[in-house]
Parts: sequence; structure tokens; C-alpha cells
Amino acid sequence: MLAEIITIGDEILIGQVVDTNSAWMGQELNKIGVSVKQITSVSDQAEHIKQALDEAQQRADLILMTGGLGPTKDDVTKLTLSSYFNMPLRRDEATLAHVTDIFARLNRPMIEANIKQADVPDGCTVIQNKNGTAPCMWFEVNGKIFVSMPGVPFEMMYLMEEEILPRIKKAFNLSSIIHKTILTAGLGESFLAQQIEDIEDQLPSHIKLAYLPKLGQVRLRLSGTGADEEALEKEIEHFAQQIMTRIAKHVVIDQDIALEKAILDQMEAKGLTLSTAESCTGGYISHLITQHAGSSAVFAGGAVAYSYDLKESILGVKHETLTTFGAVSEQTVKEMAQGAISHFKTDYAIAVSGIAGPGGGLPGKPVGTVWIAVASKHKVEAKLFTFGSKRIQNIERSAMAALTMLLNLLKQDLN
Amino acid sequence: MLAEIITIGDEILIGQVVDTNSAWMGQELNKIGVSVKQITSVSDQAEHIKQALDEAQQRADLILMTGGLGPTKDDVTKLTLSSYFNMPLRRDEATLAHVTDIFARLNRPMIEANIKQADVPDGCTVIQNKNGTAPCMWFEVNGKIFVSMPGVPFEMMYLMEEEILPRIKKAFNLSSIIHKTILTAGLGESFLAQQIEDIEDQLPSHIKLAYLPKLGQVRLRLSGTGADEEALEKEIEHFAQQIMTRIAKHVVIDQDIALEKAILDQMEAKGLTLSTAESCTGGYISHLITQHAGSSAVFAGGAVAYSYDLKESILGVKHETLTTFGAVSEQTVKEMAQGAISHFKTDYAIAVSGIAGPGGGLPGKPVGTVWIAVASKHKVEAKLFTFGSKRIQNIERSAMAALTMLLNLLKQDLN
Repeated sequence: MLAEIITIGDEILIGQVVDTNSAWMGQELNKIGVSVKQITSVSDQAEHIKQALDEAQQRADLILMTGGLGPTKDDVTKLTLSSYFNMPLRRDEATLAHVTDIFARLNRPMIEANIKQADVPDGCTVIQNKNGTAPCMWFEVNGKIFVSMPGVPFEMMYLMEEEILPRIKKAFNLSSIIHKTILTAGLGESFLAQQIEDIEDQLPSHIKLAYLPKLGQVRLRLSGTGADEEALEKEIEHFAQQIMTRIAKHVVIDQDIALEKAILDQMEAKGLTLSTAESCTGGYISHLITQHAGSSAVFAGGAVAYSYDLKESILGVKHETLTTFGAVSEQTVKEMAQGAISHFKTDYAIAVSGIAGPGGGLPGKPVGTVWIAVASKHKVEAKLFTFGSKRIQNIERSAMAALTMLLNLLKQDLN
Repeated sequence: MLAEIITIGDEILIGQVVDTNSAWMGQELNKIGVSVKQITSVSDQAEHIKQALDEAQQRADLILMTGGLGPTKDDVTKLTLSSYFNMPLRRDEATLAHVTDIFARLNRPMIEANIKQADVPDGCTVIQNKNGTAPCMWFEVNGKIFVSMPGVPFEMMYLMEEEILPRIKKAFNLSSIIHKTILTAGLGESFLAQQIEDIEDQLPSHIKLAYLPKLGQVRLRLSGTGADEEALEKEIEHFAQQIMTRIAKHVVIDQDIALEKAILDQMEAKGLTLSTAESCTGGYISHLITQHAGSSAVFAGGAVAYSYDLKESILGVKHETLTTFGAVSEQTVKEMAQGAISHFKTDYAIAVSGIAGPGGGLPGKPVGTVWIAVASKHKVEAKLFTFGSKRIQNIERSAMAALTMLLNLLKQDLN
């Protein structure tokens, strides 16, 4: 089944906003067995929107639109759809009540433009938008389905998850799709593929394996279609187990979550605590950890020790270690990790010290040289990495490498 | 002048990759006076690419393509263009030498697929891609210009900046555009607009003012076109000065840079140092600061103190302050900022303590309650913010509010 996405709004075309909606929608549609044929971003102009609709419905059966539903005059999507489908506007009382209620709760006066948000093309199905004032509209015309949603990401996501995706499954009578994701770290896509080639070759035609690589991690996603959901789930689980046994060393978890979240969950289950001692990653690792709700159960805190002084005073790195071996060295990074454990009183710690660049390279230590250590109360391990010349990439890759090392240390200790 | 962007690749349609290229290209094209009419993302299929090209050249004079130029079989852009423009492939010796050189430097063997990267449609202008093996191709056909670039962002960006944008200006004989950006913080778009309404009304028709809002900051961009570049620059500067005088309190800097970078530059010029004491922002502020090259000249480091223990041990917050007023309080956040200054020996410090959510709300302190303090050696100021219920947004908004407070403290001290 083919779908197209049309995003409407000048702000995308002038580059003020990055269109993250389409990628998210593409992922979610794929999960229910719908392929996106084309994504089209058009301006807030009626003729342009109509042309995009003409072209899209020649290629696809489902056309999902986002944007252009605000109360201001530059938003023309609703009027354009009214004219395109030849459906005059009618005032929808349920929508009016919803909009009125929102303004009452915010204690703000309603103006004519807000009331007009309750006008909808007569002939579409109105789906209430709990997170905003613009209603979602569902059209069935000439055997095709057209859906118009607001462009605000969290309004669109909620509507898709709660209303649109279930209705799409029903309208197109899609067979169930079951997905199982295995998060791996530390081995590249092509090497993983080599190791599980024979398992992949044995997959029946209704089960597909996708490789989704990102920054040193690869997600393996098994997706199966079939009528008997229970049998399908068992079948996919069987292949997932085969794969996980084969590449056990590289499996983080059999869930579709972030690497640091998988670590937090494991540590929380065992009542373990973590701290960080960051130099070149500059707080990025603790930011990754603390963006997850509930991280405070595991994460006590950390130090961003850019200067020699702070490495000594907060982390207890010895002055002579710094002067003898330098800040970017095995000795320093190990003392940073051990210092974090003793000063921050945690069970585990991560330490990173490197040259993120673009400046700061030293003889024998070019930009991209990064030492990473992970420590428990009984053990400390350090490893040297040589990344590239780009600062942001070096920070991101260092963080992922550090988290992967921590995961491996946890595996050794907990198994 | 109208352009269209066509991004080619299944990875965008399945949502594996967010298309950030198009937004960046849209911005850069706007700066030289080219408007993007439509952005289209299509699959790696020859017929689909051809259809997109047919449609795009009916609307625009310039069609920029990215993606589908890799050495593997699933990349079909080059073959498709060869067939679309009826230009058989020829081997380009300069490209072959470039590709051979890259493989020699990496000490990797070249296979047939790599050699084929040097084959180009006979009739296009080849532009060497210094950052990769896929050449950029420029076609002039029927009065329209088509450019095919690799999809890897840093390869595309370099090619656009160094080669494509200058050639576009020349090919379409675009009149010069001059931009001047004023970064403001702390006041919303509509309030700013109100304050400078009369100045905006006086702008001549060849100078436009755009409001680009983002997380508590608004960029004001003046863009002017004209034949006499020097006169135009003076004219824009005149209006920029008028605006900056009017809203002086909210002006960060008259450059198009990030807020934290503006702060770093100001502090570096005065030889001042900075540290951070973060609780709910969890390292995000120090990450923002340290992502900028050269930040180590100003930033000594900081603490991410999630636990009570760490707030006491690293930052010297008094135990009784925490037990009497709680971690999220004016007293605690002030002691955190002062502790950072004395423990980390810096001239200035930022401290944040709040409830990022979604859990952790307290009676009288709902999720989204955030206390922020900024301190110099002689002064400490704290402010209470009430953000929303979304964790990531609370973290981002806290960081921006903290940086804005620091900027204002610096202004008081330095003026």
C-alpha cells in the first residue's frame, strides 16, 4: 500500500524549520505496512497545494498532509481543500465547543479567526485535536483517502498514534505487522550481516530483516506480516533468539530504545549508580543520560573538567600524572574514572579525555585522539580511540564509544 | 528566481534519515535571492526521479538534486540523468585521478564500482567533490539548470558554498543581496515587532525584515537588494542601528551566531572565565558551550549535581539549605552558583535547579518549576521560571533562560 506525505508551509521552504514530521511519519507508516512513495513540501498557496494533490493521488491511495491549519490568513490548507473537493465550509459544533473550552481554560479572549477554526469542509470526517485548536480532517474521495493534520509535531504525533494509524489499518484492511528490534553496539553493519548471513537467508518471505545503523550502533529490525498474530510473534521471536545467540557479544537489548536508556534500565534493576567525568565531551554524555525521565535513580552526577585545575580538584587526578603524561592519556583518564567513583560515591563511572578539535592537536596526539575509561569499584579499563577532525562528530562518537565500553563492563560484572 | 530541491533516496522515505539538507539549502538559496518553490523526496527509482524532474522544471529554472550517487547498485541517480538528458556516460579522467588518490591515501583497494564513479554523462560540467568520491554534475538543458550533488551533508554543504552558490549567482545574474542579522533574547516576536513597528514601516521596498524565532531568542534579519553594494551596506547598517538602539536591552549581538557563542566571544575578549553548576539541565548547558571550538579559553568546567550529596560535596551547598528549602529553591541555586565560582575558581557561574519532569513534581513546585542563578564574584541573581510538562523542552528552555541571564549580568558588569 502506497502513501504520500505533503507538508504545507513556507517555513519549510525557506529553511526556517527542518521537516522532522515526515521522517517520523515514514517510520510509523512503515511499521503498519504502508510505504511512502514521495514526500512533497509546498508553499502556502492554494494552486500549489492543489497541484501537489493532483500529482500525489496518481501515485498513491493515501495522502497525508500536515500544516497550514493555523488561524492566521497565511494558512490556506482548509479553504483549499474545501474548494478542491467542492465541499463548502460548515461550522462544526463539537470543534467550536473544543476551541471555546481551550480559550476559557487559558483565560484568553476568542477572536473571529479562532471561531473560524471550527469551520470544516462539509463532507469530511472531523477528528478532534486534543492538543490544539486546529481540527484534523479525513476525506474519502474517489477511492482515495486524504488526511489533513496540523504541522505542530506533538499535535501531529498524537493524532497519528491515537487516531490516524488505527483508521488507516482498518480502512485498507492491512494485515498485521509485527516488529522486533535488537539494538547492537560496537560492530559495523556489514560485519554483522556477514555473521548472520545464513540466518537471514533462512527467513521466510513474510519476515524481513532491516539494518538501521547510527553512530556505532546498529538496530536490527525483524518485521513480519501474517494473519495469525500469535503464531507470527512466536516465529519472529524464534529468529530473533537465533540472531541474538549468534552475535551475543554485540547485543545491547532486544528493545527499540536508546543505548544510554538500555544501560540506565539495567543499572536501575540492579540498584547500581553511575557518575561521569568528562573533558572533551563537555557534558554531552551526562546530557544524553539525563534527557531520560527517571535517570536520577541511577545517575548521581558528574564533572565537566575542562581545565587541569578541575581535573585535580574535583576528580583528584594527581598533578604529576597530568604533567608527566598529559591530560589526554591512559593514566589521566583512568584516574578521572576512579576519582569520579570515589568523589561522587557511585558504583560505576565513565571518563573521557581527548582532543575534540579543530585546534589543540599535539605531537603524537592529533585532533581526534580520545582516551576513554570505565570503572567499577574494583576495576578500571581504558581504551584509545582515533576519530576524525570534526568537533561535533568527535564528541558524539566519543560518547557512544564510552557508553558501549560501560555496557561491556556491566556485562562482565553482571553475568 | 525559483528553484526546486529533489532529494533522492529510500532512507528518507522510510524515515531512517531526517532530511536536514533541504532546510540548509533553502536558507542558503534565500540568502542569494533564490526562492525554493518545492522540495520533493523520491525513491531510488529511475522512473520516479524522471517524473520529479519533469514536474520540477515546469515550475522552476534551477533544480538541485542530492543523493543517489554512491557506488552501490541501489544508487541510480547518475544513470537516470544520463538517460533523461540523453547523454551517454564517458569516463572523466580528472575524477578518476581524484578517486584513485583517495583510495591510495586510505590504503584501500579499488574495485570496479569505485572506478565507475568517474563515469559521467557526456555533456555535463563535472565539479570535483573534495570531500568524497562522487562527483558533482552541472547540466544546462533547455534554458534550465540541473545540479546533482551527493547527499552526505558535509559533502553537499562544501560543494554548495564553494562551487554551486557562486555559479548560480553568475548563471542567473542575480543582483547582490546583503544580510544583517541581529540576535535578540528575552522578548517574544510580537512584542519586538510592536516596539520597532515604525522603523519597519519606513523600510524602503528593497530592504526586508524577517523575524526568525527560536526558543526565547529572535533573530531579526535585514535583507536588501541593489546594484551598489557599498551604498546598500550603509543603508542596511543605518536601519540596523536604529533597531538596535530601540531594543537595546534585548540585543545580544549583531551577528548570526548562537547565543552561547556570543557570550563566549564577549568573555574571551575580556579574559573572563565561566563555570556551570547544573541539576535539571543535566550537562546540557556545558554541552552547548563546549560544542564551540575554542570554548576552553573561557569555560573551566562544571558540575552536574543531580544528587543532594553532590550538591554539597562538589558545590558546597549547605546541608541545612537543602533540607530547609529543598533542592529546587532560590537559596540552593544561589549557593550552587557561588559554590561553582569558589570551587572552580572562575569569574562567572551559571546554576540551574528544577523539576524537568515528567515525574518529580512537589506540592507548590509542579513539574516545570526551575530556579536559575547567575553569579559573578561580587553578585548573585536568581529567578524563578515555570515551564511546561515536557522534559526535553524544559531542559532546552532552562538552558536558554540561564544563558540570557548570564548575558544580562555581563552587560551590567561590562558597561
